[in-house]
Amino acid sequence: MADMDDTVRRHKYELSEDEMPTRWYNIVADLPTPPPPPLHPGTHEPVGPADLAPLFPMALIEQEVTTERYVDIPGGVLDVYRQWRPSPLFRAHRLEQALGTPARIYYKYEGLSPAGSHKPNTAVPQAYYNAAEGVKKLTTETGAGQWGTALAFAAALFGLECEVWQVGASYDAKPYRKLMMEAFGGVVHRSPSELTEAGRLLGADPANWSGSLGIAISEAVEVAAGDPETRYALGSVLNHVLLHQTIIGEEALLQMAKAEDTPTLIVGCTGGGSNFAGLSFPFLREKLAGKISPRILAAEPASCPSLTQGVYAYDFGDTAGMTPLMKMHTLGHDFVPDPIHAGGLRYHGMAPLISHVYEEGYMEAEAVPQTECFAAAIKFARTEGIVPAPEPTHALALAIREAERAKETGEETVILTALCGHGHFDLAAYDAYLTGQMTDEAVSAERFAAALETVPQI
Amino acid sequence: MADMDDTVRRHKYELSEDEMPTRWYNIVADLPTPPPPPLHPGTHEPVGPADLAPLFPMALIEQEVTTERYVDIPGGVLDVYRQWRPSPLFRAHRLEQALGTPARIYYKYEGLSPAGSHKPNTAVPQAYYNAAEGVKKLTTETGAGQWGTALAFAAALFGLECEVWQVGASYDAKPYRKLMMEAFGGVVHRSPSELTEAGRLLGADPANWSGSLGIAISEAVEVAAGDPETRYALGSVLNHVLLHQTIIGEEALLQMAKAEDTPTLIVGCTGGGSNFAGLSFPFLREKLAGKISPRILAAEPASCPSLTQGVYAYDFGDTAGMTPLMKMHTLGHDFVPDPIHAGGLRYHGMAPLISHVYEEGYMEAEAVPQTECFAAAIKFARTEGIVPAPEPTHALALAIREAERAKETGEETVILTALCGHGHFDLAAYDAYLTGQMTDEAVSAERFAAALETVPQI
Repeated sequence: MADMDDTVRRHKYELSEDEMPTRWYNIVADLPTPPPPPLHPGTHEPVGPADLAPLFPMALIEQEVTTERYVDIPGGVLDVYRQWRPSPLFRAHRLEQALGTPARIYYKYEGLSPAGSHKPNTAVPQAYYNAAEGVKKLTTETGAGQWGTALAFAAALFGLECEVWQVGASYDAKPYRKLMMEAFGGVVHRSPSELTEAGRLLGADPANWSGSLGIAISEAVEVAAGDPETRYALGSVLNHVLLHQTIIGEEALLQMAKAEDTPTLIVGCTGGGSNFAGLSFPFLREKLAGKISPRILAAEPASCPSLTQGVYAYDFGDTAGMTPLMKMHTLGHDFVPDPIHAGGLRYHGMAPLISHVYEEGYMEAEAVPQTECFAAAIKFARTEGIVPAPEPTHALALAIREAERAKETGEETVILTALCGHGHFDLAAYDAYLTGQMTDEAVSAERFAAALETVPQI
Repeated sequence: MADMDDTVRRHKYELSEDEMPTRWYNIVADLPTPPPPPLHPGTHEPVGPADLAPLFPMALIEQEVTTERYVDIPGGVLDVYRQWRPSPLFRAHRLEQALGTPARIYYKYEGLSPAGSHKPNTAVPQAYYNAAEGVKKLTTETGAGQWGTALAFAAALFGLECEVWQVGASYDAKPYRKLMMEAFGGVVHRSPSELTEAGRLLGADPANWSGSLGIAISEAVEVAAGDPETRYALGSVLNHVLLHQTIIGEEALLQMAKAEDTPTLIVGCTGGGSNFAGLSFPFLREKLAGKISPRILAAEPASCPSLTQGVYAYDFGDTAGMTPLMKMHTLGHDFVPDPIHAGGLRYHGMAPLISHVYEEGYMEAEAVPQTECFAAAIKFARTEGIVPAPEPTHALALAIREAERAKETGEETVILTALCGHGHFDLAAYDAYLTGQMTDEAVSAERFAAALETVPQI
């Protein structure tokens, strides 16, 4: 609610282009133990650069394994970032007022980017480094479509072709996302598709018809691996992707300082984990250094709770088992989550780096059912004026739980959340919620247990 | 195109919240002759405040007729504006590069607002003043849906109900727009509807089935006029609406000064005219004062060219003839334009204030066919990363024509255009264009001539 009161408050904590951080942050440098390495799917030996070269350009492989604390952002990437970065940090005055909470709520908003989410933060450097090494085409998967849109945009900028396998459930529910990718020049396929061996094989089982990120990854990887001028780009999970997203948290640190405030809770949604890591890792650096002490909380969907219900084990990143084995929290690589509206969170695993940080006890996780998320989203939209993507509504729901707790306890609470994208392409989900047709996920311990049986025994 | 070159350029000319202008500008104060007054539809006498009171709150009626040069923006409105304002002014480096033009192209981007367009600039003060005078509900029309979304958002902030009649063609083509209005709490009807006398009467003619802004206005006005706690809100055309939009141009003046550059051409699209006036009137003030000398150019759709093909005469603002008569450029109040994709430009008339400025020779106009607009839009999207709404693509098309002319002549050309909204809800139009299914408007002199016969003889 606004009101007739004529007080003018500060809503944004902005940075100028010149204040934008010029390096990415690598949490590995500050962790007491290194994360376990990925293993070759055949030999179970740690993978080396040569194993990854058919899929990624060398610059990204180097970033994947670097132990340097900071990586300089190239000028060509900074130049593109500067169109929409630094992104704003907002104080949610009107949401606080509507909740009647003493908590102060801040949100770092990535929805003003070309793709409408945080995804261009990594799409742009990935396209840049691929173009620099002479690659002609990028393939990728996309869930909600945010990542595919970001990569199509970035590819257009650097003169690369871009071919996207979109998870079937999202492809069907969000036709505008496909059109957005096409407007940027991308080519989009419904996954599972008939175009790849993995797609034909997995698509033969009707249980896979709604698709999953794991299946779409198999398809995109297969095409990239088969063509020397094509590389594969992943929108989350890998170290270099998380690295690129730390620009979010680096900016947010500067902005919280401008707000002269310190978060007591940092909450972000987790699918593959890049948005969450992007916001929280720079704050975790400060926490490890003893400068601040926020709780760091991952909000995961009840339908796909890899941190709270999965096991920490080596598993494949994709469903067909073509990727290296990664030590991560996983629900099993052939787990197909319910087709919830937050398509971007329907991933069976969790970024190895987040999994490691979680195991080390530096963060917490909580699963949220989707109707609570959409109730939070509607409250947010009608006060803050932004219709959020379904993914970050998971974090909003936990932020609101915390703000309501602060109302009861009177504790000084400062919440910082990652609003990683807008929901302009997700309005069918809002329609389902507002017309009472949305139900919570059917979640059963038996189902998770059955899926976990597919995790390789290593 | 970006490139591998690592030069970091300045892309945005931003203002801080504290630099945001705090008053709106009224061009009437600086025009040598006053614009002709609106007339009562029955008596043909100039309308007074009492005639307008059933439709608008007194504060807006005062703004409608004021001759003061500046109007202070209330604190409660500034507080909401500050969430997304000042809006950025971008330099289109990558578009310039792709065109190979020496012209410098700037765009003032309003798509980062809650509704995704410039419309909240007036929706917020309209809701504010209505709430201050005790109004409970607002009714309105919407074409593309941008205005309805903005009003639904603003109404939610100030605790007002909001009921929207959406032009049939847009309602059918853009289901997500309706859902966005509903997410903000608005109630949306397809126009012509069965809910009003005007809707039933006009809807009986199949020629009206795709609807028009004129018909939707009749419906919204009828409902507001019949309920003492309800008022009507118009998203364009009227003086107070144009006044509120001048925040765009006031900011752009400060931003062009930061860029140390001066436009030689200012181009904006015109439907009712509020976006165009919002950007250009503050620059026109400077032009009238002899400080700058840009050409000021309105880009109108070939299907609805009120400035270039209409007559300057008294006509109704709506199709049923319920509004006051306004002296304006009109194609006749029952003209129903082709259902082009730029739904926001399908209005038979032009803001009386713009019409007057045009008659006085201070600006020019040009009509553009829609395939040229979408060709420009795709060029823009693939370089600047923003998929524009169909409406501002008309201005982009003329900006690109000018940039290409500069390439031939070598003249120093500085273009400033109003990118008034994003096209996230208009992707079906992009699909039609990219798949070759879009055709140019069928325009015939006979059709315009026939429509002009409905203009009242006063």
